[in-house]
Amino acid sequence: MKHIDMNSLLEEHKTKLQWIGGQHAKIKQIKNILNGKSADSAMFFAIEGIWAHQKLMKTNIEMDSFLFCPECIYSEEAFHLVEKSLKKAKNVFIISKKVMEKISQEDKLDGLVSIGLLPHHKIEFLKLKKHPVIVVLDGLEQAGNIGTIIRTCDGAGVDAIFICNKKAKLTNPKLIKASMGGVFTVPIIEFSNVTACINWLSKHNFHIYLADTRANRTYKQHEYSGNIALVIGSERYGISKEWYNYPHQQLLIPMHGICDSLNVGIATAVIVYEIKMQKDGSVL
Amino acid sequence: MKHIDMNSLLEEHKTKLQWIGGQHAKIKQIKNILNGKSADSAMFFAIEGIWAHQKLMKTNIEMDSFLFCPECIYSEEAFHLVEKSLKKAKNVFIISKKVMEKISQEDKLDGLVSIGLLPHHKIEFLKLKKHPVIVVLDGLEQAGNIGTIIRTCDGAGVDAIFICNKKAKLTNPKLIKASMGGVFTVPIIEFSNVTACINWLSKHNFHIYLADTRANRTYKQHEYSGNIALVIGSERYGISKEWYNYPHQQLLIPMHGICDSLNVGIATAVIVYEIKMQKDGSVL
Repeated sequence: MKHIDMNSLLEEHKTKLQWIGGQHAKIKQIKNILNGKSADSAMFFAIEGIWAHQKLMKTNIEMDSFLFCPECIYSEEAFHLVEKSLKKAKNVFIISKKVMEKISQEDKLDGLVSIGLLPHHKIEFLKLKKHPVIVVLDGLEQAGNIGTIIRTCDGAGVDAIFICNKKAKLTNPKLIKASMGGVFTVPIIEFSNVTACINWLSKHNFHIYLADTRANRTYKQHEYSGNIALVIGSERYGISKEWYNYPHQQLLIPMHGICDSLNVGIATAVIVYEIKMQKDGSVL
Repeated sequence: MKHIDMNSLLEEHKTKLQWIGGQHAKIKQIKNILNGKSADSAMFFAIEGIWAHQKLMKTNIEMDSFLFCPECIYSEEAFHLVEKSLKKAKNVFIISKKVMEKISQEDKLDGLVSIGLLPHHKIEFLKLKKHPVIVVLDGLEQAGNIGTIIRTCDGAGVDAIFICNKKAKLTNPKLIKASMGGVFTVPIIEFSNVTACINWLSKHNFHIYLADTRANRTYKQHEYSGNIALVIGSERYGISKEWYNYPHQQLLIPMHGICDSLNVGIATAVIVYEIKMQKDGSVL
């Protein structure tokens, strides 16, 4: 523990630090966000713990508030994250262990909680590389599924995610957590309706692929080139009708057993990795 | 509703039916199973609702007890499942809506709950087709992840699942639910230790592939033929050391973003479908 000198750190930053108790408005705000009760229009999200702060530090995400509990900081790793967060965050608050316990949704207290501001990507400003791959999520309901898909898209190097028929907030804590930081890096753009999304893709010469259990060609029986949009439908209702009126190809994942379909996050990953590995070559 | 005549059905089967209240031992048993509290040695599992009973009817799984609540049976589909279950189940119990509510873990009451007996597959009796694909789960902790992988293996037509360093019971309700019936169809065999598993695979000429984020070849840079065993490690600790002492190949899934790895269920699916599609050809 030789590199942890919390007292010096607190002394050094004392003008920026504010001790707050459990009744402070900031505590209420963070609890609301962690319980998914924040206003829809606000793009505030909350994260907790070491791994999430490590991810956040690697991004340009605006860190609105950083709250930490000095008594809960044990490891050098956590201490360094406090040092970095003190520089990055607009507002810094110190809280007691009791207040941290009141806020925390985790089993283990790492002593770090932050409120950040998700970037609001606009379609007009989306910059894409040549021959991009975009994943379109149409009506997905479960925040955990959406987060897992964002994590997969981050991993596969998908260029953007489009969302139509939005059912879950991007700031939903389950989504943020399942995305493992992916929500900070992959540009995610929401469309007010399916037609607006189709029009944009059409104007920009995207080939549209629909993942559909009724298709008669598998996802392996296509060669993916040019601009690719892969459309994934909701867990219960599949893909909206509008897509079928526009030129498209349908992709099937063969199912050999008792289950009719894969979990939506699994199905997306199988197809997305096939598309990306075909396009990038199998080279690392 | 013209095909639903509950009274006639109850009359017809009256010798087999038993009305029970909330204090009956069967209710306690089913609640214990649904709460994951059943004894480890017992292979009893519980399922609830229409979809789960539909899956169960497609299998040879032994149905120990079937409990239903006549007042909760609305649809023809549910009624037909009652008819079938009355024939299939060893013991049949009728319960009130109040008792059903006490048991149920679902938001919507379908009026059907059953206790089944998972088959205990033994390695000595495992029959495999030529050049099988086996997925080995080594130390996986989360029942939901294991269930999702079983669903994927069912879909991909994986021949068997081997489990080493077991951390979750196969009868765990989250596992049963996430598997979407896959746990009823894919032969799943538990090994007491990794060495026993390696010895079996070695004796039967399996090529061993380890999914490892440190590998220097991707999962696409291999040609899969012969007998294949894909080893997947735990969410936190990866694959046990013993595997690395035995001849093997390592597989990487390229990661382009902020995340170091994919969700374990996602990673398994990406590799398993590649192996199966290569081996089966892209033909449906």
